[in-house]
Amino acid sequence: MAGKLYIVGVGPGHHDHMTFRAKQVIEESDTIVGYTTYVNLVENLIDGKDVYRYAMTQEVERAQQCIDLAKEGKTVSLVSSGDPGIYGMAGLIYETLAESGWNPKTGLQVEIVPGVSALNSCASLIGSPLMTDFAVVSMSDLLVPWEIIVKRVEAAAAGDYVIVIYNPSSKKRIHQLQDTRKLLLKYRSPSTPVAIIKGAYRETESIT
Amino acid sequence: MAGKLYIVGVGPGHHDHMTFRAKQVIEESDTIVGYTTYVNLVENLIDGKDVYRYAMTQEVERAQQCIDLAKEGKTVSLVSSGDPGIYGMAGLIYETLAESGWNPKTGLQVEIVPGVSALNSCASLIGSPLMTDFAVVSMSDLLVPWEIIVKRVEAAAAGDYVIVIYNPSSKKRIHQLQDTRKLLLKYRSPSTPVAIIKGAYRETESIT
Repeated sequence: MAGKLYIVGVGPGHHDHMTFRAKQVIEESDTIVGYTTYVNLVENLIDGKDVYRYAMTQEVERAQQCIDLAKEGKTVSLVSSGDPGIYGMAGLIYETLAESGWNPKTGLQVEIVPGVSALNSCASLIGSPLMTDFAVVSMSDLLVPWEIIVKRVEAAAAGDYVIVIYNPSSKKRIHQLQDTRKLLLKYRSPSTPVAIIKGAYRETESIT
Repeated sequence: MAGKLYIVGVGPGHHDHMTFRAKQVIEESDTIVGYTTYVNLVENLIDGKDVYRYAMTQEVERAQQCIDLAKEGKTVSLVSSGDPGIYGMAGLIYETLAESGWNPKTGLQVEIVPGVSALNSCASLIGSPLMTDFAVVSMSDLLVPWEIIVKRVEAAAAGDYVIVIYNPSSKKRIHQLQDTRKLLLKYRSPSTPVAIIKGAYRETESIT
């Protein structure tokens, strides 16, 4: 039997903000793959399934594993918080498939299930909808060189965009947000409103 | 009894991609307000409720009507396709409330229910996830002067962003997209991939 790979966005993390389609494909799947924190978000749906939990830095292994399992005939859900397209695993899956000469029409069946991303949920929570144009930029310089991130922040500031920052800092990455703050103050008043949101709609939610 | 106003994103338009919370609050509401096309998207959920359908250009009246109905004690869902924060009604509701001296703690209860926006659903459909930084800009110059839109398109192009364009054209607005194309060709190769998506996940879906 041909397998199938779903790349599923489960939304901000609270079950209420998941889509019907996301729940449906997780229930349909016999195999669940994901970063441990994301798998935990859907724990109530995966009883009795084969579950592969991965640590944060094993994205490439995770992509390969999903593809291998689906090729073996499994129905696999690769779970992701938010929307799997926005800083999620969808791109890496397509890249890995493309490298192996994948033909979307005749090869492994892949479906992306879009979800409510952090930019949607955070803006809703703070009552500050993204009503006018906005730019979305990640501070993570693991895949994008820092000079490009700086160029993008400058462009967004110059273009008078509302700016949504993903991955603002980590244990090893602190200076980036500070540098961005300095950059933005060249263009914006120090009284520009800023909201810092962690764990939107989860029990750990915090808003500053 | 105190009323409540939900500003609900129902996602791209197909029931599967609605969130559980969106369905829940629509079911809880006794009154449904929205642009006719969006109300039609949830027709199967609103039987027996008071329904107010509006034409496209009546945003201000719609906002005021929702607030009035909720203040009268109704539980009102203002339905919106996609995410109500992204080019939706959420901003206008907050503006209208703020003008009337609204206090979020003691005044009318308002909840935004985030949804899967067109940027999420379209990227999922075409297998081109928004994996790196992206800028979102609307071509509608009803509320934003065209010079600012031009400035934003230039900034996004210069900042090497993937660009998501909302409201590309209408019967009265055609030159904007053509002008944007010319602008972008100053920065990008003519072979840059472009996808044009209408009615994502709806029966009228078309992808070019």
